[in-house]
Amino acid sequence: MSVDPVALRRFLDGGYAIVREYERAMLSQPEFAKPPAPPPTDRYREQVSERARILAATGGPSLLFPKEYGGLGQVGAAIASFETLAHSDLSLLVKCGVQFGLFGGAVHHLGTRKHHQAYLAKIASLELPGCFAMSETGHGSNVQRVETTATWDADTGEFVIETPTESAQKDYIGNAARDGRMAAVFCQLIVGGESRGVHAILVPIRDEDGSPAAGVEIFDCGEKLGLNGVDNGRLAFHGVRVDRDALLDRYAEVTEDGEYRSPIENENRRFFTMLGTLVQGRVSVGGAAISATKSALTIAIRHGARRRQFGPPDSEELPLLEFRAHQRRLLPALATTYALHFAQEHVVAELDRIFGSLGEGEEEAERDRRELETRAAGLKAIATWHATETIQVCREACGGAGYMSENRLGELKADTDVFTTFEGDNTILLQLVAKSLLTGYQDEFEELGAFATAGFVVSQAWETVVERSAGREVIQRLTDDLVPSRERDEDLLDRDYQLGLFRFREEHVLSGAARRLRRGLSADGADPFEVFNDCQDHVLVAARAHVHREILEDFCAAIERADDGDLRALLERLCDLYALSELERDRAWFQEHARISSTRAKMLTRAVNGLCAGLRPTAEDLVDAFGIPDELLAAPIALPGGEASGTSSADIGDELPNVREILERVGEEVLQ
Amino acid sequence: MSVDPVALRRFLDGGYAIVREYERAMLSQPEFAKPPAPPPTDRYREQVSERARILAATGGPSLLFPKEYGGLGQVGAAIASFETLAHSDLSLLVKCGVQFGLFGGAVHHLGTRKHHQAYLAKIASLELPGCFAMSETGHGSNVQRVETTATWDADTGEFVIETPTESAQKDYIGNAARDGRMAAVFCQLIVGGESRGVHAILVPIRDEDGSPAAGVEIFDCGEKLGLNGVDNGRLAFHGVRVDRDALLDRYAEVTEDGEYRSPIENENRRFFTMLGTLVQGRVSVGGAAISATKSALTIAIRHGARRRQFGPPDSEELPLLEFRAHQRRLLPALATTYALHFAQEHVVAELDRIFGSLGEGEEEAERDRRELETRAAGLKAIATWHATETIQVCREACGGAGYMSENRLGELKADTDVFTTFEGDNTILLQLVAKSLLTGYQDEFEELGAFATAGFVVSQAWETVVERSAGREVIQRLTDDLVPSRERDEDLLDRDYQLGLFRFREEHVLSGAARRLRRGLSADGADPFEVFNDCQDHVLVAARAHVHREILEDFCAAIERADDGDLRALLERLCDLYALSELERDRAWFQEHARISSTRAKMLTRAVNGLCAGLRPTAEDLVDAFGIPDELLAAPIALPGGEASGTSSADIGDELPNVREILERVGEEVLQ
Repeated sequence: MSVDPVALRRFLDGGYAIVREYERAMLSQPEFAKPPAPPPTDRYREQVSERARILAATGGPSLLFPKEYGGLGQVGAAIASFETLAHSDLSLLVKCGVQFGLFGGAVHHLGTRKHHQAYLAKIASLELPGCFAMSETGHGSNVQRVETTATWDADTGEFVIETPTESAQKDYIGNAARDGRMAAVFCQLIVGGESRGVHAILVPIRDEDGSPAAGVEIFDCGEKLGLNGVDNGRLAFHGVRVDRDALLDRYAEVTEDGEYRSPIENENRRFFTMLGTLVQGRVSVGGAAISATKSALTIAIRHGARRRQFGPPDSEELPLLEFRAHQRRLLPALATTYALHFAQEHVVAELDRIFGSLGEGEEEAERDRRELETRAAGLKAIATWHATETIQVCREACGGAGYMSENRLGELKADTDVFTTFEGDNTILLQLVAKSLLTGYQDEFEELGAFATAGFVVSQAWETVVERSAGREVIQRLTDDLVPSRERDEDLLDRDYQLGLFRFREEHVLSGAARRLRRGLSADGADPFEVFNDCQDHVLVAARAHVHREILEDFCAAIERADDGDLRALLERLCDLYALSELERDRAWFQEHARISSTRAKMLTRAVNGLCAGLRPTAEDLVDAFGIPDELLAAPIALPGGEASGTSSADIGDELPNVREILERVGEEVLQ
Repeated sequence: MSVDPVALRRFLDGGYAIVREYERAMLSQPEFAKPPAPPPTDRYREQVSERARILAATGGPSLLFPKEYGGLGQVGAAIASFETLAHSDLSLLVKCGVQFGLFGGAVHHLGTRKHHQAYLAKIASLELPGCFAMSETGHGSNVQRVETTATWDADTGEFVIETPTESAQKDYIGNAARDGRMAAVFCQLIVGGESRGVHAILVPIRDEDGSPAAGVEIFDCGEKLGLNGVDNGRLAFHGVRVDRDALLDRYAEVTEDGEYRSPIENENRRFFTMLGTLVQGRVSVGGAAISATKSALTIAIRHGARRRQFGPPDSEELPLLEFRAHQRRLLPALATTYALHFAQEHVVAELDRIFGSLGEGEEEAERDRRELETRAAGLKAIATWHATETIQVCREACGGAGYMSENRLGELKADTDVFTTFEGDNTILLQLVAKSLLTGYQDEFEELGAFATAGFVVSQAWETVVERSAGREVIQRLTDDLVPSRERDEDLLDRDYQLGLFRFREEHVLSGAARRLRRGLSADGADPFEVFNDCQDHVLVAARAHVHREILEDFCAAIERADDGDLRALLERLCDLYALSELERDRAWFQEHARISSTRAKMLTRAVNGLCAGLRPTAEDLVDAFGIPDELLAAPIALPGGEASGTSSADIGDELPNVREILERVGEEVLQ
């Protein structure tokens, strides 16, 4: 099977090719060269700040912001840019993510015109470095129970921000320890003595001279497992006063008369609507995880193709990639990375579509947004776990060389590690996915508040919900045409057969979970918590099955878009390898549910072996197609002396151009 | 179920309790306090060297060396001491492992009286810091193909050490970049123009003033993913001359007349005999991995028991450990860690027995040593992979707090990461295990040389070997009484049932691999390499199945040794959880081979859930029983203000005592 890496790379780059090329070229400049050894934290932080300022000066972040305020209003392009930046220093990535995505995103999506006018341009230019102060020492996942308060003082017309306990300190906050001047602080809003739930308020945390603002305590979180170029800190507020405009008031305001008003009456619904607007953070992290996985696979596969060790006696040693065990470690992971790439592409497209045409309050738009949230949550979880697992395998596959910092696998491991638990802990995210599937989108949002709160979902209302959606809809879908027969004779490589198995698993696990919940809740003296806790592992399995079905479908859709025959054939084989290695991994389940016989299960292993051997000759091409410039990859074992990797960057001249110039040069339509 | 953590800890400490207590107490002194933040490499290296000198001064390393040369000749105790040291800084551990275990071990086991007299005391006191120079840039796993040469110069009666190519540089060598004065260099010995295979020679690498010796180039490997307190370096030799005595000549000598002599005629056998004496390194690494896993589980389980997040609406949040998903992540890993602890205890006992009474050349002793090598290789692989996986899970289970350096999970992850690939790459080790099982111990060692060479085993001789051992013996054993019936009614908690399944799996996978190899090799025009490569994944599965059967048996044997009823009951449940979670993990295989029905497979999941819930109340006790002092654990999330962890250290007074005094104080018999 032949492959044209350049064509494949273009195909992968998709509609945002020009942005990716721009990023590759720019990040390949000396300003972004990897330093010979990681500097100590302070120098490293300074370096990251400096680089973030260079990025801001080139206008890249403006992609994210609306045109009315000097931005370019291209959220999909912004994510693609971010994904590419993720081949560079991940501290720089996260520093930018905090400033432009999280802090900027909060002002953009939770604020109104007055905030946009005052701040968005300054945020995009880094004139106003800021923080996203949500997590607290005592509350990371259960954000609805944060303890920081903002109390309306009717006498002065101000909010008073307070950290009532040690566990209420805002913790692990990026940009807080060194650079941030302002923070979007999530706190319980108290008006007229009544608590109105979590809202975001802009609070200055440093003065012009960089010292902490009056009433604000700032601590440094110090050294971390990775991402040490990011200045994470801890914030405490002691009677800090901000005026009425500081409240990000898109979803709730306090009038001059001290009256609380919101277009969304239900507190839970308001909370989740607010959180929902921040979905781009999860999409970004998922994309960054996939990029980092690509970096690691590129290093390990190039090494495996060049490094010789062992072989038949009395002859030259063989490249590691000739060995089945080595193929098995790297190639299914490579196929899955391809699959995730296409799934990410889908979610980014949805993000761009929905947030590009932000209609307020329409029911359809709200349903779309919730579907997007579910899709983004599930993909983020699966993609970040895949990154952790794959980068580890890559490290081991490179042996001692993989342990040397210069080969970058250590930094990739350490920096991406936190991706599995920040921007939503993966275990919690999968429970949110399951909840969304079990309740169905047709149900009233209000009913679900209480479950949503608990993350894994506790309340009496479940009973009816489960009955209605799962009992009727899910199970009905199942009995239709989705059940593959026990012993179908189809080739394992028949895509419909694979899809049928993925769909069957999803529906079966989901309806089983629904039945268990309903049965448990309807029992005499049932303790809802016990019932849900008892099903927790079942619910997680359901969510995983759902996400993998989406991933496979996205891969299929991507294949449909490939019109080059060779390319299509290659993608077909990669898709087979993804699908069959996933089926192999879960073949116990399929046997338990009589969808795969024991004979067929053993055939799966053989088929995966065969696909690995078949794809091995294209392995280097498959990673070259990720398009990571040598300057960014920077790992000596992946760049042996004199050998060209086949990956080069576009020529952008000697000066760093502005993203606008690039867009103008090629026409904005390329970005669609 | 009740548990007495102190009694359990004693039980775990086993025969070496006093050594463990000694180490705990000593390492809890201020001299060994964890620094507030990791110092940069140079300072860190200096600190580690200083601490290694303090350890040497207390006589600890003398446990490892023979009594004739000032040692204490207690290898089992030495390993136990090392395992405890592994709760402290792992750079210090590895620095000590290189000096005393690897460098000292090479001189001890490969050298003769003249080397022992000249060097052992100086090695134990760190007066002579040294290196173990085996790996080369081009050869990590395939040591038999190292390229460094030692050529006998008959005119001067010297060996000339040469690094002929860049890939022949000794690479990743601990103690080389900063401290080492001498190295045990593994090189191809050339006498009279004839190559005699790999031998070890002592080569001075630095002068008295610390500068590189004439003809020796030393490079610094620089920053690593972890273990940055160890000064790994790269060595190249250019015509370096050492005299005849420099050859470690226990297994081969060059006479004054330039004649090469060895008591072991076959070159392969000689090579593997030499390597075999270094088995204590693998035993040490396996033990260290288990210790690091215990540190991580202690941190994560204490955190999980204290950290509250989510819960039923309108009530206090619940500790994370109340949630099934959290239990599932940590408790099976805890049970497996217990299982590995007992398996490690077994291998250490064997090491102590065999190396404690080192008879030369007896056939039985040689068989014992080979069995020990196989056991140590398998356990090292499984234990180090378990460490990598479990520490990762622990990090995630602690969320953002787990990402902060102060909570130590990052350092545990990074420092132990290389354990999976050093002292034998795990994938290679499992292939060695399989080879040893397939060939059987009764076969002549000579025949196997060629396979052993290739690691995954390639040669015609296989054909007869496989036929003889697997065809006859293994399959015969299988047809006897080991086949569990398809639908036995026994309780899943019946230990014999569990053991039967573990044994069946081992025998079945092994004999299947043997049949495949035989069939492949006997085909017309068979390419032996293709045949073996085609079976490589099968062979790895066989090795894993073998090691897990050994682990389960060791756990059973440990339970037999527990005479306290409560303790025994607790161990029984832990053993169930280990056994059933391993069966659950591999339940696809058991269904494929008709040993577990699909109904029973689903019951496994429920049984594991039940065991987790049942063990949850004892979880904190189970980690307290590892006996890691708070001073060593040092993670704030595991040591909340004011709460005592229940773990304290023995009082050893204000001054660091010498290990001899400790032994005298309590009587040496405690160490047996």
